Amino acid sequence: MAEETEMLDPRSSRTRIRSILDAGDAMAGRRVVVGGWVRAGREQGHGAPDPFAFLDVNDGSCQGNLQLFVKGEVVGYPLARLTATGTSVLVEAVVRRDERAKHGVELAVTRVLEVGEVDAAAYPLPKTKTGCSLDPAYIRDFVHLRPRTYLISAVTRIRSELSFATDKYFRENDFLRVHTPIVTTSDCEGAGQMFQVTTLFSQAKKLEAELKENPAPSQADIDAAKLSVKAKGDIVAQLKSAQATKEEISAAVSDLKKAKEDVLTMEERSKLKPGIPYREDGSVAFEKDFFKCPSYLTVSGQLHLETLACSLGNVYTFGPTFRAENSHTSRHLAEFWMVEAEFAFANLQDDMDCAESYVKYLCQWLLDHCQEEMEFMVKSQDKEAIKRLKMVSSTPFERISYTKAVDILKDADGKFENKVEWGIDLASEHERYLTEVVFKKPVIVFNYPKGIKAFYMRLNDDQKRVAAMDVLVPKVGELIGGSQREERLDVLEQRMLDAGLPLEQYDKYLDIRRYGTVRHSGFGLGLERMILFATGLENIRDVIAFPRYPGRADV
Amino acid sequence: MAEETEMLDPRSSRTRIRSILDAGDAMAGRRVVVGGWVRAGREQGHGAPDPFAFLDVNDGSCQGNLQLFVKGEVVGYPLARLTATGTSVLVEAVVRRDERAKHGVELAVTRVLEVGEVDAAAYPLPKTKTGCSLDPAYIRDFVHLRPRTYLISAVTRIRSELSFATDKYFRENDFLRVHTPIVTTSDCEGAGQMFQVTTLFSQAKKLEAELKENPAPSQADIDAAKLSVKAKGDIVAQLKSAQATKEEISAAVSDLKKAKEDVLTMEERSKLKPGIPYREDGSVAFEKDFFKCPSYLTVSGQLHLETLACSLGNVYTFGPTFRAENSHTSRHLAEFWMVEAEFAFANLQDDMDCAESYVKYLCQWLLDHCQEEMEFMVKSQDKEAIKRLKMVSSTPFERISYTKAVDILKDADGKFENKVEWGIDLASEHERYLTEVVFKKPVIVFNYPKGIKAFYMRLNDDQKRVAAMDVLVPKVGELIGGSQREERLDVLEQRMLDAGLPLEQYDKYLDIRRYGTVRHSGFGLGLERMILFATGLENIRDVIAFPRYPGRADV
Repeated sequence: MAEETEMLDPRSSRTRIRSILDAGDAMAGRRVVVGGWVRAGREQGHGAPDPFAFLDVNDGSCQGNLQLFVKGEVVGYPLARLTATGTSVLVEAVVRRDERAKHGVELAVTRVLEVGEVDAAAYPLPKTKTGCSLDPAYIRDFVHLRPRTYLISAVTRIRSELSFATDKYFRENDFLRVHTPIVTTSDCEGAGQMFQVTTLFSQAKKLEAELKENPAPSQADIDAAKLSVKAKGDIVAQLKSAQATKEEISAAVSDLKKAKEDVLTMEERSKLKPGIPYREDGSVAFEKDFFKCPSYLTVSGQLHLETLACSLGNVYTFGPTFRAENSHTSRHLAEFWMVEAEFAFANLQDDMDCAESYVKYLCQWLLDHCQEEMEFMVKSQDKEAIKRLKMVSSTPFERISYTKAVDILKDADGKFENKVEWGIDLASEHERYLTEVVFKKPVIVFNYPKGIKAFYMRLNDDQKRVAAMDVLVPKVGELIGGSQREERLDVLEQRMLDAGLPLEQYDKYLDIRRYGTVRHSGFGLGLERMILFATGLENIRDVIAFPRYPGRADV
Repeated sequence: MAEETEMLDPRSSRTRIRSILDAGDAMAGRRVVVGGWVRAGREQGHGAPDPFAFLDVNDGSCQGNLQLFVKGEVVGYPLARLTATGTSVLVEAVVRRDERAKHGVELAVTRVLEVGEVDAAAYPLPKTKTGCSLDPAYIRDFVHLRPRTYLISAVTRIRSELSFATDKYFRENDFLRVHTPIVTTSDCEGAGQMFQVTTLFSQAKKLEAELKENPAPSQADIDAAKLSVKAKGDIVAQLKSAQATKEEISAAVSDLKKAKEDVLTMEERSKLKPGIPYREDGSVAFEKDFFKCPSYLTVSGQLHLETLACSLGNVYTFGPTFRAENSHTSRHLAEFWMVEAEFAFANLQDDMDCAESYVKYLCQWLLDHCQEEMEFMVKSQDKEAIKRLKMVSSTPFERISYTKAVDILKDADGKFENKVEWGIDLASEHERYLTEVVFKKPVIVFNYPKGIKAFYMRLNDDQKRVAAMDVLVPKVGELIGGSQREERLDVLEQRMLDAGLPLEQYDKYLDIRRYGTVRHSGFGLGLERMILFATGLENIRDVIAFPRYPGRADV
């Protein structure tokens, strides 16, 4: 084939709508190529000699739309092909001042380069000028198209900025970014609500197909093969007693050997059974699984993170986390993203300092980088959203012990569904009462009873409490959970025994306490919860692109 | 409990070794707190009245060690407690000039604040002055301790910097960072080597325990309950015929109703069987699984990414990816991290431009930010490593069509294990020959035969080739694979039918072509392969903290 047929199309050079809106009329007169999707279009003068259309176009780079002015004579076909919501357009145009436009500019289209049409009757997203009235529950059914809406595109940009701010914060604070494993055999939280990872079903399917193609031998087949072995043995014996030549005997022996091997292979194959492999005691033979033992999707990278922190000082991980909780609430996902930080030579107070400064950094980052998105949230979701970010980014967090928190809550006991007494795990209503009503700012509660916290949290000298801390914020309650970790080998082993954990399975984790153990602390923040806090959205399914929950992994 | 017992320890304030080494003697005279792990320690004057020790300490912040000088009188216990490799120390010290030290400074320790001891006889990592001779295969068995070695700590910092550089590159180029789902029902690559995600085993286990506690009713139990229903029915009939009071009849009816319900419940429970649920046709009843259908770990986020790019313009995702390949080679992992970018209004040439500039950016970033780590790689792994980064970051990539590549390879046919002819998938030996021998720089091969590439790649006008491209680099061969995507609904549907894919399962994916379709392109880069390329390391298990491969998910 001649090389000439393989010329490449020329480069595209598209100007982002954001940079045009940001520049405002400083770009007036400039010729640009712009591509995006029509959010709202209207034709004017239809049927008249000089019809024209206005298209509000968005390309995902910012919250605002750019208005395109298109004359009928420019396109040479009915303008209705361009105006339906969802239509994609790539145009060449000139930027011009327009004082009526929100950003002071619009585009006068000189050429329509590409169009991706939409059948307006079939398109599920409605035309809307501002997007403020769109129901999040309605567009949730169109998870593949909803990023085109004002709401979900704003959420996506906020999520993107929070992700970047996270990495920037930790890098500026000398943390290394590491990747803890997703597939693991250890249940870090001990909650047991884990997804199992397996290839047993596909192995079984493969074997079934293979056996269909080439069935396992029956007992009769094997018996016949055994008879043949006997016959061949007889021949060898006869040849030997008849003093046949060495060559004759050796040929017969090798024939016999092959027949014996065939029997072994047949016996082996006759044991093959389609379906999941079981052990003799009836339990599943996970030693035949890919990882040779039951393995799961991680519920937390913490134990792995600890081994890295105890070698490298400050580390963090940012990745997906899983809970097989059969929960259909607006607060739970089966798959969500967590930021987990772990740092050596650090105690509980250092932990609180870091968590507080990280949360403040995120809030300030959104105020600095997502102004339009946050204004949209104020208009459409929660009028307190920006106020809340400002308050959290600028107010020192209150720090109180669990004991004090319980004392405060007891004074307001009648207000709660769940009774308050020392030893209980604080419920969301308690957490929100502390941060929203009592202190009206973020609160860090520390020194929790050991009975309600995980085995790895450092036992205080009183033997009753552990060096744990939770950061509570208005709107969502607990945003961060963290602790100083138990670095003393003997204490940790005892705590694990008390929790009924098999020590041998945690041998590597314990090694970290055997060899150069250090004081260390860490915390975790759920990204989705941070976005709920920032945006004021109510349903966690709206803050991740493709939410996973019971019955839903199909899109 | 009194609040006074809950005083927090004072804040720690640790100075990173990196900042001391970077400052050099500009910090001389300063009092600092430093923490880290001893890589090599030696005691001098043991038994003499004034023993002292030198400790080479590293805290993960940089490649180099800081030398600590500790006098016996400062600690008050045998210095041998400090000198074993792996020991952790937190010390207060004064920075002082030392012309013999590599960075011109050492620390004179004034107080040892904390020590985490090591039994040198039990500690698996050897004492080494430079780490250059350490065998990667040996330390691979100590995956939880190897981040303390020169090699793995360098790899970890390189990985951290490449991750950050990735996010910085895409943000600077107006890409939104999104999170595509990990659990999915679609097999993007059609390769079928996927891990299944399930709760069926744990559900079975739970049910088994429940049935042990509370056995399913036997047929005799059910028959007895049915008899009881009959008897209660008779009572109602008798009461009615005896014209009993309304209350009496109503009580008997309600009694009968309850008995009937009991039978239904018993019949339902009698069907409960422990073990995996099967359908009547013998197949596994995945509708009882968590996601109500077979679901898998993602092999690529591309299809999801495309729907986002076709709403938001430029997007990328950076996350874990899985292949259930039963491979024990040094090039394969079951779990690895991929960067995937997707951008709208872009053709194959734009795709190549972006891929090239991204790879150059990563190489330049390492040269700028990981100098010491790269120098270590040159000394210990691959003396070409820095040269290679410089070459790639500064040389325009060669771009040739697949057809031309095949012509070149044919001329050298005798050199290869795999015969070359138009239509074959290029093997690693071919790729490396092109980039290492022929062009001696990175090569982008484009326009591949459609038969060897995925269904979603855009069909060229010749109907024979697709707008695919691979970026080949010295040392590893293919580093990036990408393509322009098929945006034409009819062509895509035909390609999917040809590939035997069920269209209805991809309905949402096809919607993107139905509603405002746009030209779009994208590519993927495997992070581990990029690290192999950068460092010259040979085994992929050395470039991720906790490698996952057949039989290995237990640490």
